Parts: sequence; C-alpha cells; structure tokens
Amino acid sequence: MAKLYFGSDYQQAAHPDVMARLASQCTVPFPGYGTDEVCEAAKAKIRAACQAPADCAVYFLVGGTQTNATVIDALLKSYQGVLAAETGHIAVHEAGAIEFGGHKVLPLKNDWGKISAAQVRKACETYYGDDNRDHMVMPGMVYISQPTEYGTLYSLAELEALHEVCAAYHLPLYVDGARLAYALACRENDVTLPDLARLCDAFYIGGTKCGALFGEAVVFPNPDLVPHFFTIVKQHGALLAKGFLLGMQYDALFTDDLYLRVGQAGMRAADRLRAGLRKLGIREVIPSPTNQIFIRLENEAYKRLSEKAEMSFWSQESDGTTTLRLATCHLTTDEEIDALIELLSRETEHAAR
Amino acid sequence: MAKLYFGSDYQQAAHPDVMARLASQCTVPFPGYGTDEVCEAAKAKIRAACQAPADCAVYFLVGGTQTNATVIDALLKSYQGVLAAETGHIAVHEAGAIEFGGHKVLPLKNDWGKISAAQVRKACETYYGDDNRDHMVMPGMVYISQPTEYGTLYSLAELEALHEVCAAYHLPLYVDGARLAYALACRENDVTLPDLARLCDAFYIGGTKCGALFGEAVVFPNPDLVPHFFTIVKQHGALLAKGFLLGMQYDALFTDDLYLRVGQAGMRAADRLRAGLRKLGIREVIPSPTNQIFIRLENEAYKRLSEKAEMSFWSQESDGTTTLRLATCHLTTDEEIDALIELLSRETEHAAR
Amino acid sequence: MAKLYFGSDYQQAAHPDVMARLASQCTVPFPGYGTDEVCEAAKAKIRAACQAPADCAVYFLVGGTQTNATVIDALLKSYQGVLAAETGHIAVHEAGAIEFGGHKVLPLKNDWGKISAAQVRKACETYYGDDNRDHMVMPGMVYISQPTEYGTLYSLAELEALHEVCAAYHLPLYVDGARLAYALACRENDVTLPDLARLCDAFYIGGTKCGALFGEAVVFPNPDLVPHFFTIVKQHGALLAKGFLLGMQYDALFTDDLYLRVGQAGMRAADRLRAGLRKLGIREVIPSPTNQIFIRLENEAYKRLSEKAEMSFWSQESDGTTTLRLATCHLTTDEEIDALIELLSRETEHAAR
Amino acid sequence: MAKLYFGSDYQQAAHPDVMARLASQCTVPFPGYGTDEVCEAAKAKIRAACQAPADCAVYFLVGGTQTNATVIDALLKSYQGVLAAETGHIAVHEAGAIEFGGHKVLPLKNDWGKISAAQVRKACETYYGDDNRDHMVMPGMVYISQPTEYGTLYSLAELEALHEVCAAYHLPLYVDGARLAYALACRENDVTLPDLARLCDAFYIGGTKCGALFGEAVVFPNPDLVPHFFTIVKQHGALLAKGFLLGMQYDALFTDDLYLRVGQAGMRAADRLRAGLRKLGIREVIPSPTNQIFIRLENEAYKRLSEKAEMSFWSQESDGTTTLRLATCHLTTDEEIDALIELLSRETEHAAR
Repeated sequence: MAKLYFGSDYQQAAHPDVMARLASQCTVPFPGYGTDEVCEAAKAKIRAACQAPADCAVYFLVGGTQTNATVIDALLKSYQGVLAAETGHIAVHEAGAIEFGGHKVLPLKNDWGKISAAQVRKACETYYGDDNRDHMVMPGMVYISQPTEYGTLYSLAELEALHEVCAAYHLPLYVDGARLAYALACRENDVTLPDLARLCDAFYIGGTKCGALFGEAVVFPNPDLVPHFFTIVKQHGALLAKGFLLGMQYDALFTDDLYLRVGQAGMRAADRLRAGLRKLGIREVIPSPTNQIFIRLENEAYKRLSEKAEMSFWSQESDGTTTLRLATCHLTTDEEIDALIELLSRETEHAAR
Repeated sequence: MAKLYFGSDYQQAAHPDVMARLASQCTVPFPGYGTDEVCEAAKAKIRAACQAPADCAVYFLVGGTQTNATVIDALLKSYQGVLAAETGHIAVHEAGAIEFGGHKVLPLKNDWGKISAAQVRKACETYYGDDNRDHMVMPGMVYISQPTEYGTLYSLAELEALHEVCAAYHLPLYVDGARLAYALACRENDVTLPDLARLCDAFYIGGTKCGALFGEAVVFPNPDLVPHFFTIVKQHGALLAKGFLLGMQYDALFTDDLYLRVGQAGMRAADRLRAGLRKLGIREVIPSPTNQIFIRLENEAYKRLSEKAEMSFWSQESDGTTTLRLATCHLTTDEEIDALIELLSRETEHAAR
Repeated sequence: MAKLYFGSDYQQAAHPDVMARLASQCTVPFPGYGTDEVCEAAKAKIRAACQAPADCAVYFLVGGTQTNATVIDALLKSYQGVLAAETGHIAVHEAGAIEFGGHKVLPLKNDWGKISAAQVRKACETYYGDDNRDHMVMPGMVYISQPTEYGTLYSLAELEALHEVCAAYHLPLYVDGARLAYALACRENDVTLPDLARLCDAFYIGGTKCGALFGEAVVFPNPDLVPHFFTIVKQHGALLAKGFLLGMQYDALFTDDLYLRVGQAGMRAADRLRAGLRKLGIREVIPSPTNQIFIRLENEAYKRLSEKAEMSFWSQESDGTTTLRLATCHLTTDEEIDALIELLSRETEHAAR
Repeated sequence: MAKLYFGSDYQQAAHPDVMARLASQCTVPFPGYGTDEVCEAAKAKIRAACQAPADCAVYFLVGGTQTNATVIDALLKSYQGVLAAETGHIAVHEAGAIEFGGHKVLPLKNDWGKISAAQVRKACETYYGDDNRDHMVMPGMVYISQPTEYGTLYSLAELEALHEVCAAYHLPLYVDGARLAYALACRENDVTLPDLARLCDAFYIGGTKCGALFGEAVVFPNPDLVPHFFTIVKQHGALLAKGFLLGMQYDALFTDDLYLRVGQAGMRAADRLRAGLRKLGIREVIPSPTNQIFIRLENEAYKRLSEKAEMSFWSQESDGTTTLRLATCHLTTDEEIDALIELLSRETEHAAR
C-alpha cells in the first residue's frame, strides 16, 4: 500500500483547476512583479468576496512565514513588538523571522491557540501602567491566526472584542489566514471574509494550504496603512518576479467559489476522519473543529503507524504516549481516510490485547 | 497586433516540459520542506552536472533577491560586508535586502558589470593596509553575477583569478546565476558548471529566468561551509513548504539537458534579434554577448515603441536618447523577433526622414 | 529635608577615589579607543583578581544594556537565541535591544530571578527532541545575572551545575554582573571572581553601579571565543573614543581592593536598612540578600513617601498595595538610611491607627 | 621628551571646568536616565544658544557613532537609506553601524568631504526618474558633517541650499557636529547654532571632542519628528543610566560661553601650528580651515616622527609619501606645537640634505 499523507495540508501541489489555469497560460507573456491585468482581476474578485471598497489594497506573496515577517515588520515601529499567543506560528515555528526583522514577539498565554480581548487589554494596561515602560518594548500590534495552530476558531464575538480593544489602544489587528478556507467552510465558524475586512487592519487569505500551488493574499482594508509596501516586500525577498502566477491562482480560487469549495472538501474529509476515530473510540485531545485533528497514541503505536502514514509530531507526553496531528485537505480522498482508520483500528486492537 | 514582450526573461510562466511535470504530479502527496525523494533526485542530477561529489550541498529557494539575501547573510560574519560591482543586483535593485540583513555592500567600480581579481586584491590590500581598519567593515566575501546585469561574461581565466585572490584572503566567492542558462549556452562562454563548482564557494543555478516556473538552486560545494542553512532559509522566509515543487522543476530541467536547451533557445533568439538590429544599423551600446541586448533610441521613438513592445528602461541620456534593454528567452519566437524588428525599422525610417 | 534617593545604585556620579583619578589625569594625553597603557594596566589587574591567564581578553564598554546587546550578538549565530529568565534584564527592560540585533530571547520561568541547570537541560532536551526543531530558534547561549534583578544570588553549586549543562550543549554561559560588587561582598555569596572566570564563557564586572562614573568590563576567559570583538563593539556604537577613561576607572577600582570595598559599603548600608525595617515590622517580600530590598506599602503610603524618597516602582498588587524596591549603594549614608526608616515608621504608625 | 599627541581631538579627558563640575557633584544623588533638573537646565541653555523655542527637543547621548546610528535609524523608514558623502564618517569609519540598523548609506562623490544641494537634487531626480525605483532604496534623509571629516566647512549659503532641496524632497537634513565647536570658532565659518536649528531637522552638538569628558547633544527643532526617541535610544544601548553626568557637562559647556571658548582655543592652536608649517614650507594638502590639518611626509620621515608624535594615518600615496592628519584641540599647548614644529623641521632639513 502507498504511504498515506496526513502530515499537513501542503503535501500536494494544487487543486487541479488551479494547475489547469497555470498550464493554460504557460507561455503567455505578462508584465512582471504583479503589475499585470490578471493580478488586477484577481484582486477585484478578492475585494468583492470581502465586500471591500475599490481602494482596499491586496498584495500577493509566496509563503506564510514570509508573509507574516513582511507584514509585521511593515506594521511595527522599531520600538514596538507584536502581541501573540505563545503558541502562535510566529512565536514558535518561524525560526525567529520576526526577531530577524528586529522585533520582539510579546507572548500571551494561549487557550488552545487563542488569545482574548481581555488578555490584550491586560497587557496594554500593564504596559501603560508600568513606570518603566519607556525601557520596555511597546505593544504595537496583535497577531492571531484563524484557524489557530490548534485548529480552533475565533468566533465573531471574540473577533469583535479584539477589534474593539485594538482600536482603543491603536494596535493594528492582523490575522494569519494560512488555513482560512477550512475556517470559512467549518460548521462552527461564524466569521466571514467581509467580517475580516471590517474588523482587521490586515489579514491574509492563505493559498498554499488551500488549493493554490503556492501564494498568500494580503489584504489591507485601509490602503494608506502601509506606504511603500511593494518595496518592503522586495526588501524582504518576498516579491515574485512572475507575479502573474499568483494572479492566475487567486483568480482561479475566487472564480465560481473555488476557495470555498476547497475548504468544504477539506472539512468533508475531516468529518469522515472524525467519524472513523469516534467509531474506534479514539478521543480528540484538542477541541479543534477544523481540518486539524489531534489524537494521542502509545509511543510504539505511533512509531509503527509512522511507517505507513505521515502524521505531524506534536509533543511527547510523560505517560509514554505521543500527541500527533492529522490534517486533511481538499484533496484527501475517502480511500485514504478509510485506509488510515483501518491502520488505526489495528493499533487499537493491538492495544486492547 | 498583440503587445510584444522583450522586457525581461521572466515574463512567461515556464517551459512547457516543466509545467507538464508539475501538472503530472498535481495531486501526488509528498513530505514537506524539500525532504522528499524528488528533491533528492534533482540534487543528484545537479551534482552530476557539476561533477561535484556526493556531499556537495544543494538547496532550493524561490527567487533571486531572496537567494542572494539568504546566502550572503549566511556567509558573512556580523562585522563583514560583501564586495560587489557597484552595478550588481544586490547593490542596486534589491531594495536594500542585504542591508536589511545587517550587512554593507562594498561597491567596486564596474567594467560593464564585471569586477576583476585585481580590484578585489586592491580592496583587500587597502583594507589590511589601513591603520583604521578595525573601525571599518571588513571585506567578507565577493559577489559576482554570471552573466552580469549588463549581459557580460566572466571568462574562465577571470574566474580563476578571482578564485585565487578570494582564497588568498579567505573570502568566499559567490556567483549569482539568475540567468546562468544563457551564459552556459553562449558562444563566447568558456565557464562550465564543473568550473563553477570547482572555483566558487557558493553559486546558484537560476530557474526563474531559465525555464522554471520559479526557483533557484543554491550549490555549496563544501557542505560544511554553512551549518544550519535550512533554518537560516526558514528565518529569511525563503523556505517553500511544498519543496517538492522545486524538486520537480529542477529534476525536469536537468533531465535530457533541458537546462542547456533552454539557454540555447534563448541565445538563438538573441542571435536572430542581433542580426535584425545589425541590418537596421542599430548599434548595441553595451558589449553583451548573451540574451540581454542594449540599444539606444530617441526619447520619442522609445515612447512610441513602448506602446507596442515592452522593453526595459535602462537610463535616460543627456542627448535626448534613452538606453533600453531587450531580453530574449527560451520562449521567444521568430515571429515576435521579426515583429519587433519591423517596429524598430519604422522608427529608423522615421528618424532618417 | 533633602529628598532621599533609594531608587537605584546609579544615582550618584562615582566613588570619590574614581573621580579623583579621572581628575588627576584630566589633561594628560593618551592614544584613543582603549589602546593605551592605562587600559593595559587595568586589564592586568582584572586578570589578576580573576586568577586568569595573561591571554584572557578584557574589554571596556560604557553601559549595561549596551554590553548585553553587544556580547550576546557577538556570541550568537544568526539562527540562535539566548536562554534567559523571563525576568532577566534583557527580556524585559532593554527595550528590545536583543531583538534589534536579530535574536530571540528564549524565556524560562524564574525562581526569584534565577534559572536552574535543570531548566536549561530541559529546554535543550525539548528543542533537540522536537521533530520541528529546524523551524525553531536554536538555544545558542545562556544569560544569567549575578545578582539577579531580584537581588538573589546563584550559589557556587548552582553556577557549576549551569556550567556543566552549558558545556554539554555547547552553550556559552554569560553572566551579567551589573551589580557584581554587591554580590561579591554579600555574606551569603560563595562565588568569587576566579569562579566566574573558571565557569563562564563571558561575564562583565559592572562599574556603573559599583563605584565607577560609568563603565562595564567584559571578560572572555578564552580570547578566541569572539574574533574581531573590537569591531563588533564599534558597530554597536559601544566603543568609547576616550577608552583611557575606562582604563583609569577600572585601574582605580582594582587598586587596593576598591571594588570589594565599594561592595562592602553598599552591603553595610543594606544591612542597616534591613535592621531598621525589621524593627518596624516591615517584611521583605523577595528573598534578596544583596543591596536590593523589596517591600510592600499601601498605595497611599507609597504615594506619600514618594514625595520624600525616590524608590523604584516594582508592581501594583491587587490588594491595594504597591511592591517597591529600595537600593543602597556604596555612597548611601547612615543618615540617609535613618531618615528613610523614620519616614517609613510614620507610615507604619499611620497604618496602625 | 614626552610623546606628543596630535592624533585626534579626543586624546585628553576633558576641559578642567567640565571635570571640576563633575567632581563638585560627585556624590550628589539624582534621578536616573536624564530625568533630572541638571539635564533640564542644560537643555534650556542649549535651546537659548540655538534661539530655539521651548519645545525644541534635546537629548544627550554618549558617543558619535552611537548618536549617528540612533538618530539615523530613528529618522528613516525601513525601506529608506541615507544620502551621505562617500567619505562621511557613517560611510567609512563606523564599522557598518548604519547597516547593522538595516539601512543603506547612499554614497555621493565628495568635494573635500562635502556634498552639494545639486548632488542631492540629482540623486533624487535620478531616483524618482527611474522606472525601477520601487526595487531600489529610497533616499530618506541627508547626512552631512560640520566640519567634515576633511576639516572643511559648509557655508551658510550651501547649508541653505541643502535645506531647500531637502525640504522639497521631504528629506530630513541631519548634521553630525562631532567637532562643531571648532567650526563655530573658525574665522571662515558663517553658520551659527541658530542657523543649524533653523535649517536642520536634526543635528548634534559634539561634546566628546569639544571639551566634555564624553557626550553628544542631539537637537530636534521639531519635537514631533521622532516619537519615542527615548525608547529608541535605550534599544540602541545608548541610554546612559547616569544621564545627569551629561547634563552637568553640557550645563558647564553652555555656561559663560565655554563651548565657544573651547573651540577658540583649539583654533588658536591650529593657527599657531599652521604658521609653523608655513615657515617650514610644508604645504597643507587638503583645504581645511579648522582644527584638522593635513600634510604629506616621506614614508620614512613619517615613521621616524611617529615614534615621537602621535598623528593620524590618512592614506598611503603611490609616490612614497604618507598623507597624515594633525589635530589640535582646546588643550593643545604652545609648547606642544612648538615641539612638533621642531620635530618637523628636522625632517625637512633631513629631506633637504
């Protein structure tokens, strides 16, 4: 049997429609650096999906870490840091890219990957109430991810509360939407693209994990927020010469609701996987409603299973178990899910003996 | 008539064979971050083409500025700068990406984009002979491009001389090969991939402008030169999650000599364009033997032509002319060249009246 | 009555002997940048006090934050961070100077300002045991302060344990000795300068808070640890043109045990203050044995007292009290202490009514 | 005979009046970080000397490189660079401190250390006229020094022209006044402190080389130009805990015209040295009217003389001579000058034989 891949949602090239679009214009010439008409068309569609005005700024970058590092560096003053969950991607898994840009990540305790408006308010009150604050890094913006690194979701009420406290303290609110399609398609979700455009100062609509070959679309509802962002992107090595490739992909993703359908396909696969796990009595250990599913296996079982299925190591527990993550995506097939459940059932039987 | 595109060699998506390869594995799952077998296969082919030993390190990045910034930051100590032609891409057109990483570009006068071993030696002698050198940025490496930003080529003898002086002063020699395919295919060229692997400490084999959809392959003949380069790449936001996309492309480019054929196709187009210019009596103003061709037009002629053909603005001259660059690539067709020559002939007739 | 100053140990210019030394050579010319004989003499005395060999490197810088930022940037590779107590000066009160240099502070829980060898080992085990470590900031060194920001001390046993784990993981161990004189003079202390030179890879002997007008002496027992440190210091804007000023001061401080006597004077003052507090029944809220003394006052009492005595705000408590720090130094007089105790006694009487 | 020191103007500790002021308040306690009344008084005197309004911002830093790096980093956006003479201190002798802060120094050809308004205008026109400017570092401010590193002076007319072009292109104009006292006292000078306050966006009144033990006073005529400069100074490791030391010194320097007298004393010494050189027929090779005097000696003569007099190496000439700099300062005595002239006369006699 071929190896199964549930390690992440970036393990296959692209949605076939996206690939077809790229292939169909393989030798058509375009102006460089995203100054082409395809990019313009894609941006218009994104604005429409966000119910954003015509001057809403949209930029296309290549990858997630790059996008976070570039946007955060662009939003912060030199003496400011970014408030984020201690588990946020920028705080843990970007190899210090934010610090490379000269900024501190100001970590907040996380609730399954989330932070609250109350925490942001407390951090600001503490900062502004500290007589030594001029010797400290000033909170300059807030970073959250939707869904989070734990698969959890901010509700609309939570996002509105964050928006409010951010506005009160003049902190731009930035949402990392690397897996946004799966959030949008999730039954539990009540935050729409227009909500994001209304409540955030910056967010990105993830492409790499959501149907595109690669690419992330950054949205600044207020186009004056970051002057010279093009040059900042270039300085960060994040400007794609063939910007039209990003335009083509987002044009495809925002045609006939493909972005939504990608999310729905990934969530359908997650539902099937969850049903299979329930039948086996395997408990989810993190309350994620999206396409990331966290379970725990005996270390030995994890090792055996790893030979047949790629999964994502999460943490080693002290009781001899390993916490791991299974991720579905829009291309995950029923057969793959059933094969994984079959492999897992052998492990649970094994454990039961 | 459709607009003609001679602005650069990144104006079309990819060589059809590269695109076909990507499309053929559109939904096949792979491990992430370049840890897959396709990348391994591609690296092996690159090593073979370079006649490099099995431990020669190869990394795949996405774009040129990103690659330069990452490699240079990895090679330099904090107190060192990079010697480069004042016209080098890193010195002019990367929006300060090297300085963003904390390093100074130490500019040397250029000879149509090139610097010489003698200049490097002089710069080192001046530095080491200056009593105030401990207050100055130490030369820490040498950056050259092959072909240069002016389309010119280093000869093997010139490269060997640079290698020698670099070795004498313990300066890593790094070659930016954004357009390397066109150099390799150029009649005047006598520097091969094995020469680069033998004489350089680092170089990259450009993909974006040479047949790939995107991508640059960095080669470190001595794998111990840059420990933890993977993490450095990640920190620079330059690590592609779907590393296998780069593996597929370089595997295709180094199968059946496609990389060489790409270069040859681009040079054939350049030859045809040069022949046409000669017939019109239009002089090349920079002695480039590769796929970048520099001519001068009356400002008015340049403006008129720009509406029908994208060209690259180079500089405004004081005599009312504009210097501009025409670039061919592997996808440039005879029809496009003939159409451009036709447009140019109208301008020369116009000028003759 | 004149205002009292117990806010910190940098509130008076210098020990009179240090000032006298500076004044005595006010117009004597010297070579610049610390290349003079006075600096050499001072370094020799520091080496002797540390029982360090003749090649032990000593550098003089101006201030503490500057010294931390420069040393840490010099010791870390670009992809590494510094392990430190979450309460460490570099983690809180240096306005992001470490991040400005491109590095992450990796925070560890603190035990009254201290971290343990076990915590460092755990952090390293977690890092090296994490399959995703190549996407994370690598622990590259350990920062501790002696005494800590809470006035507490590492015992020799604790320092030896830290040394051992640091050696095992190839982490340079760096000690911030901004207030080192008070540690050395403290009854509870069993860590000597020779111990520091034996167990640390870098440490600084604080001058600014310990008798000097200004200045910090960085010691690298292994002189090869940081090549080109002079240039790194310059690049950080930390190189004093008149380096001889630092040489004079450290020469004075390490003549006739002045550095030790400075510490003893500060500790005698602290003892007297502690005795006074005990008499008043005012409890110390942090177990500091050195010249930093932490107490808690009703907010109103704190406010009243602040008008007559400068103290250091520490934190606002939820029960309506303020935690504050009182610092003595080598110049604190018995009269000042008695006056402060008198002021405090009025507050405790006030509270008792 | 004792060695003579003409290497620079930072080779002696301080003007005796400044030292006396420091010594007189050696044990007087003050609030930290420049929040004391002495600093306020000194700032008021500086504002008065500059005929600047009460809200003109003044900050005290420790050294020149540090001041340049901090001010320039504070004034520039991340995507901007600083226009400066290729010979400017920041371009050559600050070990890459500007690049460490992430910014490019944009070098302009120098006229004995000076740049002109026409050059700045040309650089801006070239930038704004270049179709590729969004890929380039944007000119973000102008750096000049008064006097320059070659001892030359900007005239009032030249400064006004620079002010005008800077205003037209929204470039803050910043003046490095490390040796400003000598400029102000120079016969050829027509630029006053009020002129600087009127025409510059930022400048610093050098203390280290002009009478102070150490220190530089940064003036921002528009206090809103750099919000949170205090924290930026801290982040750069440039905030002196004992800020009152800087206040005391500048209070002394701006009492009874001491700053002016310091400059006059240095210029009187320079005049005497110039007269002596003329008598010996030794030509000045750089047209400096201030306290830096440049001459050329046979290499052998330079070597011999160096054993008896410290001078500053400037450059090695191809004709077997060395260009060197002699600097006087406010403490240079007639005896020292006469002794140097005597030494030089022996060399000229030697050469004549």
